[in-house]
Amino acid sequence: VVSKLPQTGTTIFTVMSALANQLGAINLSQGFPDYDCSPKLIELVNQAMKNGHNQYAPMAGVIALREEIAKKTEKLYGAVYNPDTEITITAGGTQAIFTAISAVIHPNDEVIIFEPAFDCYAPAIKLMGGVVKSLALEPPNYRIAWDMVKRLINNKTKMIILNSPQNPTATILHKEDIDELSAIVKNQDILILSDEVYEHLIYDGETHHSMARYPELQQRSFIVASFGKPFHATGWKVGYCMAPEYLMNEFRKIHQFLVFAVNTPIQYAIAEHLKDEQTYLGLAAFFQEKRDYFRKGLEQTRFELLPCHGSYFQSVRYSNITDEKDSDFAIRLAKENGVASIPVSAFYTKGIDHHVIRFCFAKRQETLDKAVDRLLKV
Amino acid sequence: VVSKLPQTGTTIFTVMSALANQLGAINLSQGFPDYDCSPKLIELVNQAMKNGHNQYAPMAGVIALREEIAKKTEKLYGAVYNPDTEITITAGGTQAIFTAISAVIHPNDEVIIFEPAFDCYAPAIKLMGGVVKSLALEPPNYRIAWDMVKRLINNKTKMIILNSPQNPTATILHKEDIDELSAIVKNQDILILSDEVYEHLIYDGETHHSMARYPELQQRSFIVASFGKPFHATGWKVGYCMAPEYLMNEFRKIHQFLVFAVNTPIQYAIAEHLKDEQTYLGLAAFFQEKRDYFRKGLEQTRFELLPCHGSYFQSVRYSNITDEKDSDFAIRLAKENGVASIPVSAFYTKGIDHHVIRFCFAKRQETLDKAVDRLLKV
Ligand SMILES: CSCCC(=O)C(=O)O
Ligand SMILES: CSCCC(=O)C(=O)O
Repeated sequence: VVSKLPQTGTTIFTVMSALANQLGAINLSQGFPDYDCSPKLIELVNQAMKNGHNQYAPMAGVIALREEIAKKTEKLYGAVYNPDTEITITAGGTQAIFTAISAVIHPNDEVIIFEPAFDCYAPAIKLMGGVVKSLALEPPNYRIAWDMVKRLINNKTKMIILNSPQNPTATILHKEDIDELSAIVKNQDILILSDEVYEHLIYDGETHHSMARYPELQQRSFIVASFGKPFHATGWKVGYCMAPEYLMNEFRKIHQFLVFAVNTPIQYAIAEHLKDEQTYLGLAAFFQEKRDYFRKGLEQTRFELLPCHGSYFQSVRYSNITDEKDSDFAIRLAKENGVASIPVSAFYTKGIDHHVIRFCFAKRQETLDKAVDRLLKV
Repeated sequence: VVSKLPQTGTTIFTVMSALANQLGAINLSQGFPDYDCSPKLIELVNQAMKNGHNQYAPMAGVIALREEIAKKTEKLYGAVYNPDTEITITAGGTQAIFTAISAVIHPNDEVIIFEPAFDCYAPAIKLMGGVVKSLALEPPNYRIAWDMVKRLINNKTKMIILNSPQNPTATILHKEDIDELSAIVKNQDILILSDEVYEHLIYDGETHHSMARYPELQQRSFIVASFGKPFHATGWKVGYCMAPEYLMNEFRKIHQFLVFAVNTPIQYAIAEHLKDEQTYLGLAAFFQEKRDYFRKGLEQTRFELLPCHGSYFQSVRYSNITDEKDSDFAIRLAKENGVASIPVSAFYTKGIDHHVIRFCFAKRQETLDKAVDRLLKV
């Protein structure tokens, strides 16, 4: 058969997690916690199953959950979404992203992405016959040069994909970025796909500039969020997408034939869990402590720490240690030092290599201690 | 925005289930049981969560589950699938179907489907730029005229989609069909997508002619199966796809960016549950009893019963009652008689209407009794 994605291999997350397991290395590569989700949340799922919530959820999701999401969104960002027509529950953030891209990208449409970028954007665009226009950002600050964005825009530009807090760079959008973005899309037919799966993981009192805060951006945005990330249950695969009705209609046309609906008992459980705001408002402090702890440890190593404003990833540059390719270095680090990471070149479609690797710090303190001990020997 | 699927509305399952709920009608439309799954299975999910299986499963699925599937497939159909490279766990059968189509259908590729057909095939083909070549089958027997299939085939034909036991017609493939199919695809570059989600729901001692039984067909097939259907938990959204490695490689390239992985605790639970063969071998008898019971009731009504060899659907023709369009009739039946069904014209891309509606009989005896009582008044 002729491949639809001839240049695509296995996602780096699978490759590095498999390597970590095979070697028994500390797995700081793929982003997931090594501690468990709340027993209360598990019991809520168990109760939902016992209460007989085991058949198809509505195609758009359990309505109680959509209502909780609408409430939370209005409270945090001021935007009013109609749970009936503007919110859809998905099998994780990834499915939401794939579906949004599928719903609006036609052959030859151009989509602007900022790299390094989460690795599912570009393949979904290509699969729909779209053209990826990537703007490569540079460490240590990975700032978006908006004048460069302007130059990429033409009448084929259909969408801009944003991701704040950003994976893998741990950067966040600032008010200046929002202003530049608003000026660029004004009076243009350009949509926004805003991947906000790390919305609650933002540090030092910074503001999460959700597209939901800015009506003129919100009106053209698919906003994607996740429950796996905030609730420490990445394996449950429940997330959601919010969009104004004219976009959500198109989203659901695909969603209904792509997956139809999402795990029912987990939707009921999360609807209940969301009622306690602390389940998500407490996350920034929880992860900031981990970030600070991990960074303090890494400061003793030879690695150059890059900034971390959000997400649960910490990147480091190793140019002063070796000029090996980052993929070779990451493999050697896993083999020789027993710490698995993600080489950040995997997030550039053109494989640009700044000698940066990414660690996930959503780990128990003892895991971070052990990892730092091992990294000290590099 | 320009719609990717301009002719597509909301799936008939959502429309009819919503109507049933709104009216308080007995819902025999969308296919799901009104009794619960086994408490043992629920407890297995609970245990998996309590044992900490709450983070990302491997991209292709929990290996213990893939191994159980390989064992079951070899035992039932004789085919040997490598769990590492030829089996992938999906978020239900629908996601498997969408992914298989996405993985191999290029713009202008032709795909043959037999109608009435489950409503997710055609939109997925169109979304990939493929061309749907549908062969309309006729009640009461909906037999495939293989000479007509031959005439549809040309050098653009990329795939044939099969579904046995078939939804909505409740027909099954026979050995003669397999022979005709084999002759047609021999020496041709034609793939098969075989939707076998009702594999265990086959009656009167008939054989399920899985593609996995026929090496020359198996070698070109994506086989899709479901756990929601057999285990009475349609809301759990776990299914799988099996294919030879050269096809599974392409499947996973899409799967990894479409959903990445599937609910972890449910995969562990089902792996355990599958160890007891009775959980699926007992299904044919269980559902045959329901079929017989429901048919006996319907025989007293004015509806003409169509044959039912498999699946949990029973179709009836109402031409002798009225010549209303089936969609109008189904709505009226829900409103005036309190029984929701699916108008079978929804499964023909051209809306062909044979005055047939479909009922789901995966219901408690008292529900079937009540439904028959109401249908007696038509
Ligand atoms: C989809 S697996 C990867 C998890 C993740 O978000 C990451 O590691 O970046
Ligand atoms: C995907 S919802 C529909 C369930 C089903 O298989 C059917 O009713 O045919």
